[in-house]
Amino acid sequence: MNDQGKLYVISGPSGVGKSTVVQEVMRRRPNLQFSVSATTRPIRPGEKDGVNYFFVDRSEFDRMLAAGELLEHAEYVGNCYGTPEKPIDEAISRGVDVLLDIEPVGALQIRERRPDAVLVFMAAPSFPELEHRLRHRGDTPPDKIEGRLERARWEYRQAPKYDYIVVNDQVMHAADEIDAIMTAQACRAANRLDYLKED
Amino acid sequence: MNDQGKLYVISGPSGVGKSTVVQEVMRRRPNLQFSVSATTRPIRPGEKDGVNYFFVDRSEFDRMLAAGELLEHAEYVGNCYGTPEKPIDEAISRGVDVLLDIEPVGALQIRERRPDAVLVFMAAPSFPELEHRLRHRGDTPPDKIEGRLERARWEYRQAPKYDYIVVNDQVMHAADEIDAIMTAQACRAANRLDYLKED
Repeated sequence: MNDQGKLYVISGPSGVGKSTVVQEVMRRRPNLQFSVSATTRPIRPGEKDGVNYFFVDRSEFDRMLAAGELLEHAEYVGNCYGTPEKPIDEAISRGVDVLLDIEPVGALQIRERRPDAVLVFMAAPSFPELEHRLRHRGDTPPDKIEGRLERARWEYRQAPKYDYIVVNDQVMHAADEIDAIMTAQACRAANRLDYLKED
Repeated sequence: MNDQGKLYVISGPSGVGKSTVVQEVMRRRPNLQFSVSATTRPIRPGEKDGVNYFFVDRSEFDRMLAAGELLEHAEYVGNCYGTPEKPIDEAISRGVDVLLDIEPVGALQIRERRPDAVLVFMAAPSFPELEHRLRHRGDTPPDKIEGRLERARWEYRQAPKYDYIVVNDQVMHAADEIDAIMTAQACRAANRLDYLKED
């Protein structure tokens, strides 16, 4: 019997709409634990420390990294992001599933370090659609657009290394697919051996 | 890109309620093709030749077997059952998913011959519950009950060789799980590479 929790990693390019889909998945699965990342980027209006991220300064981030406290880490447009490993290990050992929403550079580190993590790449319905979203969502300075697109192209080329690709055409539909992936995972034979007892 | 169909095998002990769940899955997924088995057992009231089974005599069954036309075959309480392979190959090459509802002896033959088939074992909520269903559903002569139970115990011991175990506590719930397994399969990265094109 395997009553450990499972680690799910949702990743994909900036602009694909990961966080909205992840919120919907969390709403449907109240027992799922969201992994809060640490970041050195400034807090934005509406964000809460310890909820959206642990907002830390660079020296604290470097300390966590040096102490081996981060499962993965990446630098993205000048800021550092990392996933504290201890809360994940604790949840999983209690049988609680954990969801991470991280950048592809970090996701690929987890592929190496935790081969049994379930990696989900979130894609736009098409690459031109992703480009359209990036150009028009208004929070990316025009001179950064090309760099973001170049990065997105690299991220797309990594997607075959993931277990699943979910297409974010509509938030509810993408959430349905992630939900199905989690249900199927719970049905894996190794997780259901308890039902085979003959008494 | 992988636009081939997928072969799903639903199996499990007699009395677990496979065919009712399979009917519900077929109702929800009209594009799924049900694989009709050949059998030498007599047709029952309400059954239709070519729908529930291809009802054949022993000499025709032996001919199909000798001609290599059967993907799997098994003898069960004195009758022969087998799966014609050609209609499955044709559907899969057209991108159509195929569902088989067969006995565990046959399912394990498919495990060997088609390693990429998705095998789902259907279990009762508990073994005593399965025993209760077998004893009380009324279509098994009392002197056959022990034999069926012995067979079910052997079948349960094979279940870890399957990809998934679905528990038939309620028909709708078991159908939900099979549905989720199929949705997750469609999201496997290898089946979604078309979404990664950059133009």
